[in-house]
Amino acid sequence: MATTLKLFVTFEGPEGSGKTTQIERLAAVLRAGGMTVLTTREPGGTRIGNAIRKLVLDRAHTEMSPRAETLLFSAARAQIVDEVIRPALARGEVVLCDRYADSTLAYQGFGHGQSLEALRQLGGYTTGDLVPDLTIYLDIDVQTGLARKRAGDAKEWNRMEEKTLAYHEAVRAGYLELAAAEPSRWLVVDATAPVDQVHAQILARVQLALGQHRPA
Amino acid sequence: MATTLKLFVTFEGPEGSGKTTQIERLAAVLRAGGMTVLTTREPGGTRIGNAIRKLVLDRAHTEMSPRAETLLFSAARAQIVDEVIRPALARGEVVLCDRYADSTLAYQGFGHGQSLEALRQLGGYTTGDLVPDLTIYLDIDVQTGLARKRAGDAKEWNRMEEKTLAYHEAVRAGYLELAAAEPSRWLVVDATAPVDQVHAQILARVQLALGQHRPA
Repeated sequence: MATTLKLFVTFEGPEGSGKTTQIERLAAVLRAGGMTVLTTREPGGTRIGNAIRKLVLDRAHTEMSPRAETLLFSAARAQIVDEVIRPALARGEVVLCDRYADSTLAYQGFGHGQSLEALRQLGGYTTGDLVPDLTIYLDIDVQTGLARKRAGDAKEWNRMEEKTLAYHEAVRAGYLELAAAEPSRWLVVDATAPVDQVHAQILARVQLALGQHRPA
Repeated sequence: MATTLKLFVTFEGPEGSGKTTQIERLAAVLRAGGMTVLTTREPGGTRIGNAIRKLVLDRAHTEMSPRAETLLFSAARAQIVDEVIRPALARGEVVLCDRYADSTLAYQGFGHGQSLEALRQLGGYTTGDLVPDLTIYLDIDVQTGLARKRAGDAKEWNRMEEKTLAYHEAVRAGYLELAAAEPSRWLVVDATAPVDQVHAQILARVQLALGQHRPA
């Protein structure tokens, strides 16, 4: 019998916090353990999602209204949930997703000051109420995160990163508040720690979650 | 003093019902009467909206999930409301908009069977609760409407029209239900009547609304 341990893990954190690296490391270990792992990222991850991603991150679109931005991210999310995530979970796979509905609460809610209540309703509609089993927040102070990102791939520098420092500070504070409110779902990791150490913390928590999810 | 009679009129009805023609006729008469009239259309009407429109109406995107489709239309709507419609109304202009939030209730709610309550919440978020003063529904039986559309510009034939007849029937029944529930906002016009006659009915109702809106 194949190992089917359905688990939905999302990764949150600013650009430069190492989400991509940590997702790859975790996926490799889980696969080595015989699990089927699907990794994906928002707002891309599907053909339609990638088209939306290109549109919403285009630096030329300075006139984009905050609500339009939120709804575009939500559209990409609805597509990836319906086309990719739900089918994978139905097959009993582990899904590791780079960004999910908490990004909207953090960036559009805490960052842009939109109503959290309205955004939670929107999130419920968007995902059909699919909530992650575990959410990893890679925490990094804003200055360090932006510096890392800038030193990385400059082509990836986009409209999101151009917002003010105060905005990014509000987003970070929002993430920490969300995590504190729901500790059973969230793991906050210091993303300035060495990569191996961050990976070890994440793996330990995922193994715990897999233990909790293992069929009797 | 310039004539400023702020009024927000939306036009609903299937492709082939003559919305474009009627909006142009009405705009011409109102402009001849000295009013400033802004005409626009969903899901286009802005640069960002047009990019979204292209994406959502692309016939190749057969895998688009109903929720993603709804959220894309909503994103275009949020953009046009914030960038175009609210500023025009703030300047005291008449705004004639080809499709608005009722399209989502009709197509995604009555047509796709999504929850009307959830869609109304989504519509409130999308528009910031901006409701039209008047909504004109150009009613036409489904077969006639599709035949008219087909006989017109074939390039304009898109993914929306390819849905089944039963879907279009459900959409039409939905519009009629919405109009019946809120007769003070809606005017239902028989779109198979001669163009001049349809125009006369619309103009009469708009003049009534302008009279009601005229500052004391």
